[in-house]
Amino acid sequence: MDFPAIIADKKYGRALTDEQISAFAKGAADGSIPDYQLAALLMAIRLNGMDERETATLTMAMAQSGDMLHPDVGGVAVDKHSTGGVGDTTSLVLVPLCAACGAKIAKMSGRGLGHTGGTVDKMESIGMQTTLTEEEFLTQVQKIGCAIIGQSADLAPADKTLYALRDATATVDSLPLIAASIMSKKLAAGTDGIVLDVKVGSGAIMPTYEGSLELAKAMVDIGHRAGRNVTALLTGMNEPLGSHIGNRIEVKEAIDILRGECEGPLLIVSLKLGSYLLVAGKIAKTPEEGEKMLRQALKDGSGLEKLRELIRWQHGDESVCDHPEVLADAPIVTPLCLPEEGYIAHMNTTALGYASQALGAGRRQKTDVIDPRVGYIMHKRVGDYVTPETPLCTLYAKDEKTLEEARNMILGAITVSKEPCEKERLLYAAVTPEGVKELK
Amino acid sequence: MDFPAIIADKKYGRALTDEQISAFAKGAADGSIPDYQLAALLMAIRLNGMDERETATLTMAMAQSGDMLHPDVGGVAVDKHSTGGVGDTTSLVLVPLCAACGAKIAKMSGRGLGHTGGTVDKMESIGMQTTLTEEEFLTQVQKIGCAIIGQSADLAPADKTLYALRDATATVDSLPLIAASIMSKKLAAGTDGIVLDVKVGSGAIMPTYEGSLELAKAMVDIGHRAGRNVTALLTGMNEPLGSHIGNRIEVKEAIDILRGECEGPLLIVSLKLGSYLLVAGKIAKTPEEGEKMLRQALKDGSGLEKLRELIRWQHGDESVCDHPEVLADAPIVTPLCLPEEGYIAHMNTTALGYASQALGAGRRQKTDVIDPRVGYIMHKRVGDYVTPETPLCTLYAKDEKTLEEARNMILGAITVSKEPCEKERLLYAAVTPEGVKELK
Repeated sequence: MDFPAIIADKKYGRALTDEQISAFAKGAADGSIPDYQLAALLMAIRLNGMDERETATLTMAMAQSGDMLHPDVGGVAVDKHSTGGVGDTTSLVLVPLCAACGAKIAKMSGRGLGHTGGTVDKMESIGMQTTLTEEEFLTQVQKIGCAIIGQSADLAPADKTLYALRDATATVDSLPLIAASIMSKKLAAGTDGIVLDVKVGSGAIMPTYEGSLELAKAMVDIGHRAGRNVTALLTGMNEPLGSHIGNRIEVKEAIDILRGECEGPLLIVSLKLGSYLLVAGKIAKTPEEGEKMLRQALKDGSGLEKLRELIRWQHGDESVCDHPEVLADAPIVTPLCLPEEGYIAHMNTTALGYASQALGAGRRQKTDVIDPRVGYIMHKRVGDYVTPETPLCTLYAKDEKTLEEARNMILGAITVSKEPCEKERLLYAAVTPEGVKELK
Repeated sequence: MDFPAIIADKKYGRALTDEQISAFAKGAADGSIPDYQLAALLMAIRLNGMDERETATLTMAMAQSGDMLHPDVGGVAVDKHSTGGVGDTTSLVLVPLCAACGAKIAKMSGRGLGHTGGTVDKMESIGMQTTLTEEEFLTQVQKIGCAIIGQSADLAPADKTLYALRDATATVDSLPLIAASIMSKKLAAGTDGIVLDVKVGSGAIMPTYEGSLELAKAMVDIGHRAGRNVTALLTGMNEPLGSHIGNRIEVKEAIDILRGECEGPLLIVSLKLGSYLLVAGKIAKTPEEGEKMLRQALKDGSGLEKLRELIRWQHGDESVCDHPEVLADAPIVTPLCLPEEGYIAHMNTTALGYASQALGAGRRQKTDVIDPRVGYIMHKRVGDYVTPETPLCTLYAKDEKTLEEARNMILGAITVSKEPCEKERLLYAAVTPEGVKELK
């Protein structure tokens, strides 16, 4: 293959052939195409785009660049994936609830990077093991209905190369490349049903609602072309989803919810995603029926019991389910108030994610080590009234230096108005191959 | 400098700052920026462009990435540069003529690559030495008024890196990058007066007249901003300029012209370029006056004597000036006729250049060794009438294999029409900082 000719075609805005795209993915995976040629093509794709057929072909070629799993779990294997958010602990709420309802969830999760958190980090913060052999993984899903592990190194190696290059060449923000990166790993992981949580707002990967919608449509299209059952929900990320941001304290919030001790946006979104997951797993006929089943599992405590089982199977400390308060502890615990009075009009959620990173809960680089104890609990949401006497949040810090940095970042991320402001929307739409349906 | 942020700015179509552009050129020259980041920026520049200030800044930064010469030659040092053509031997005609008129020409030339020939190869084909020390070079210009050498390795090293990357990443065809590549070397070479020959047509680097005009304007603007006296002439390359295409046979055509034995397009364009070179060198007040002086040097034989001197100073075989016919000799000499009768409507000049390369007169890769003997003499031009009995050209080949390849390429490059066709235009326009003037 004459790779400069492939680059030239995309440079001129032409659609690439399936053969050209396969050569690209193969060369990225096996190292046979030099990085500078891959980088030039990535920029040409970023600027001239890819159509649906090209994006689907690229995704499948990236998936096939490594192992292709076929999880046999004694039922319809399902997975959920989020495009990344702040205070986004839905996995730890909906996975136990759905498994309690009979779903078979073979979930692969990531680590936190940049402003977003990662489920694998949260699990490890309570001692859970996130690396299982394929056999252990599938056996666990068969036996207890769920398992959550970090992504295997052999899944979609082309994505690994391309993601690192995109990060270094300012080509992360390309819709087809984002869609291909996410979906290649999901297709390789092999579950039949996939529910995608595509975030909308100031903490989302796409900067506009339209961008998030396009991304959702692209990923549903890719899944459909690959014969998978994929639904994407558009959900709000104009403020942190849960009130707890960090690692151990996010686990605490999930447990509090499963214990029935708190409600709110995190539960609402978890139930919605979970209801579609039950449909994908053929446990419920409709999302409405699914949501009823999930509420029952919440009410009767079977969700909490399933989380306890999940933690036990993956060698974590299940006693936290009985004493979640131990998870909110750090060398420094201190409230933070805004200097002014008024209504919270806007939150820069990306900046709020970086504040958590600054405390040590996230990574600047892949090799950074996180501190499981740190983070913060946000007591207010957009639309709430604040005064200099009512704490905006409570910070959990390891030292004064990171505390000060995070404090400034949080204060800079909040906009206050004298006029009352509307609350942020939580649920926007569900995207399936059949079309877009508004959610309420 | 955060290089991904620089890439991102160009990706969003923003103009880069002078500091950002300097970091780019410096990083390309010293290897401190990885190739994949350079490649991504090159593609972003190719697709989103650069404005005049950015292009001029990049050019100067590339020039300053290596040695900056200041040729002291006892007069106004001048240079001529062509964007590359087929049968383009103007240098060997106009350099002796201008020097005979008193100009001081410190010329750096290139080797042939792709479909275009190079003056350095033609000189070496008659045994001339093209590597001189800087002192030898300047002394020769002082003493005899002219010297032609290959480009020094220490001029514009950033261009060397970027050119190799552009070649491998399909980003050669970017107007600002072409302009910066050519002009960085000319600015570093340090002559005060520069005449650019920007080709127009099927053998030119830019595919349209408008593209060639934009390139000419960009290079004149760069030179003007750098305080140099730059004129660009737009000249025709819709067919080979001279009738001889190769290396030794191109030298033959130049000698034939200086001996007064032939006229034609090569002489016309050489005189026009030379007339502007005499103005740049402050030898003539106007191009018209310059052209008169050049015609006199042609008529009185002083141009031929100057070529003899030039060959002697650079250790070549000056006897070829007396017996140019020895330069047209190869193992196989054979005519080629078109199978059909009619008027020549079009020549694919790039393909004709590649036919010469196929014979061995040019290089596919930089490391290829050329055969000085091979090439062809084209007997017809666009508009001429041909029959299967009147030779289109005479081929000079080293063996049957390359002969056959070149034959097919030449036949495929010629379009014949039953209707009479207009001749191709030779001279289009002169571009100076003051504006564009049509040439006739």
